[in-house]
Amino acid sequence: MLIVPEREIASLMTRDAAFTAVEKVFAAMAAGDAYNFPVVREAIGHEGALYGFKGGFDRAGLTLGLKAGGYWPNNLAKHGVINHQSTVFLFDPDTGMVKAMVGGNLLTALRTAAASSVSIKHLAREDARVLGMIGAGHQARFQLRAALEQRAFEKVIGWNLHPEMLPNLEEVAREAGLPFEAVALDDMREADVIISITSSFDAILKADQVSPGCHLACMGTDTVGKQEVEPQLLARATVFTDEVAQSVSIGEAQHAVAMGLIAEADIAQLGAVINGTHPGRSSADQITLFDGTGVGLQDLAVAAAVVELAVEKGVAIEVDA
Amino acid sequence: MLIVPEREIASLMTRDAAFTAVEKVFAAMAAGDAYNFPVVREAIGHEGALYGFKGGFDRAGLTLGLKAGGYWPNNLAKHGVINHQSTVFLFDPDTGMVKAMVGGNLLTALRTAAASSVSIKHLAREDARVLGMIGAGHQARFQLRAALEQRAFEKVIGWNLHPEMLPNLEEVAREAGLPFEAVALDDMREADVIISITSSFDAILKADQVSPGCHLACMGTDTVGKQEVEPQLLARATVFTDEVAQSVSIGEAQHAVAMGLIAEADIAQLGAVINGTHPGRSSADQITLFDGTGVGLQDLAVAAAVVELAVEKGVAIEVDA
Repeated sequence: MLIVPEREIASLMTRDAAFTAVEKVFAAMAAGDAYNFPVVREAIGHEGALYGFKGGFDRAGLTLGLKAGGYWPNNLAKHGVINHQSTVFLFDPDTGMVKAMVGGNLLTALRTAAASSVSIKHLAREDARVLGMIGAGHQARFQLRAALEQRAFEKVIGWNLHPEMLPNLEEVAREAGLPFEAVALDDMREADVIISITSSFDAILKADQVSPGCHLACMGTDTVGKQEVEPQLLARATVFTDEVAQSVSIGEAQHAVAMGLIAEADIAQLGAVINGTHPGRSSADQITLFDGTGVGLQDLAVAAAVVELAVEKGVAIEVDA
Repeated sequence: MLIVPEREIASLMTRDAAFTAVEKVFAAMAAGDAYNFPVVREAIGHEGALYGFKGGFDRAGLTLGLKAGGYWPNNLAKHGVINHQSTVFLFDPDTGMVKAMVGGNLLTALRTAAASSVSIKHLAREDARVLGMIGAGHQARFQLRAALEQRAFEKVIGWNLHPEMLPNLEEVAREAGLPFEAVALDDMREADVIISITSSFDAILKADQVSPGCHLACMGTDTVGKQEVEPQLLARATVFTDEVAQSVSIGEAQHAVAMGLIAEADIAQLGAVINGTHPGRSSADQITLFDGTGVGLQDLAVAAAVVELAVEKGVAIEVDA
C-alpha cells in the first residue's frame, strides 16, 4: 500500500487538481455512479472531541474508502497541532484490501474550496466582477483563492464578525492583484458572487442584502443548528447542493425547509448542472445559491488524485499492509 | 505512526493476549467506559462486496478508531486472497491523529475466538468435560482451539452441515491430545459446552437437544435473518451478550425477542459478569447462552495489543502520517 504523509500534500496537490476531482465526483453523484455512506459523528467525551467517518464509493472512478478524524478543540493550545485532524484511507474496490493512506488536513481545506469554486464555474454570471466574502478565517483564504480563478473579478469585498481578521482576505486579494474593501453587510448588494464560510449559528446575511443575479456559495453550515443566511433568501433563490439529503438535514437549507419556505424537491444537485441534466442559471437576474455541506466522496476524490501525483513524482511511501 | 502488516500478526499475537484484550474491553463496555459507534455496512454494488466500518472508543484503555473492510465473495477465486478483508486504524484520542494501522484479517479470527472463550471462562460449569462444536469451517478451528484452554475438556464432539469438513475439528482436538467424535445433533445433549459458528439462516440446534447445565456460545449470527439455534432455547437459557443492542437486532436473540419469547431486559452483558455486577451462572442446572455478535471495540482492543507487542519486538514499521 501507499502512504502520502500530510507534509507532502502541499507540494503535490494543486487547486486545479482539486477542482477537477471535485467537479468529476459531483457529476458522478448526480449520475448515480457514486454515493456517500451514512456519516458517523460522535462526541467521544474526551478532550471535547468530535470524531467520525465519512465514507463512500465512486463506481465510475473506482474510489472506495473513508475519511476518519474530527475536531479536537484543545489541539493548538495543548499540542501545537491544528484542531481539525483527518486521514483518508482508500481501499481497492476489487478486493477490499487497503490501498492508500493520505494525510487529510490540507486536502479537506482544498476540497472545500474546490466545491464553492465548482459552483461559481457552473452557476455564477459570466460577467461577475465583484466577489463578496462573509467570514475571514483560515478556510476563507482557501475559498477566496480558488474562487478568484473562475471569473475575471475586479474587486473583493469582505465582512467578518471580528474585523481584525479581514487582512486574511486582503492578503489573498492583493496576491491576485485585486483591491480589497472591508464592507457592511448591506454593501454585499454590490457583490456578483458571495461566499459565506463561517461557523455561525445565526443568520448573518439578510435576504434583501443580496442583489438579483448574484450567486451565493454557503459553505459553513454542516451541522444541525448552524446557519449563515436568512431562510427567506433560499426562497428567493434557485438552490443547488452537493447532496440533497445533507442539505435539508445539516446544511444551510435545513432552516428554509423546516419553515416550509422551500421543499426538498426544490433543491437540485450541482452535479446535474455539470452533467447538463439541469439547466443551471436561466437568467441574468436569477439568484443561485449553492449549499455546500461537504461529503466523503469529495475527500476520497482529492485523496485519489494526490496519490496519483505522489506516484508520478516518486514521493509515495510504499509499505506492506 | 506505526504499521503492523498482516503478515506479522501470526508471529506476534497470542491467544492469551487476544483473550486478555477482549475480556478487558467487555468489562469496560459493561462499566460504561467503552462504547461502540453505529456500524456502517454497505452492499456497494461492485464484486458483490459488503464493506463498512466498525468504530468505537474505550475511555479506560484510551483506544479510539475503527476496523474498515468487509466481505468480497470472489476474492479467493479471482485473486487468490481470502474473502474477508479488513484493516484496523487506531487514533490518538488526545489529538485525533492517526496512530497505527494494523492488518485485521487474523486479528478478526482471534478476537472472535477470544469472545466465546471469555464466555466459557465466566459462564461454563467448572466441571465441563465435553465440548460440542456446530460448524467446522476455518473460523471453527479458532473457536475450538481457544475454548479448549478454558476447562479440562476430555472430548470434542462435532456436527457440520457438510460432514467432509469435520476433520478440521478433529485435527485441532488431536493437537490438544483429545478424542474427537462426529455426532448427530441429538447427541449434543452430551456436551457441557456448545459453540455454534456457522453462517446459517435457519435454526440448526433444537431446544431439546441441549442438556441442563450446558453453556452455549452462539457466534455465527451477526446479520438480520441469520440463526443458529431454536428461539425456544433462549427462553430456556439465561442469555448474555457482548452488546445488547446488537444482540436483539442482528444477533442470535433477534428471533426470540421478535417472537416475544424473551425481552431485551432479559439479556445481560457478559462484561457485567466479568465486573462482578451480574452473578453469572447461579446453578449447575442452569443453561447459559452467550450471543456473540462481534463489536468494533474487540477489534480495536486486539489491534492495540498487537501494536504493543510489535513495538516490543521491534517489528512495527514507523512512517510519517
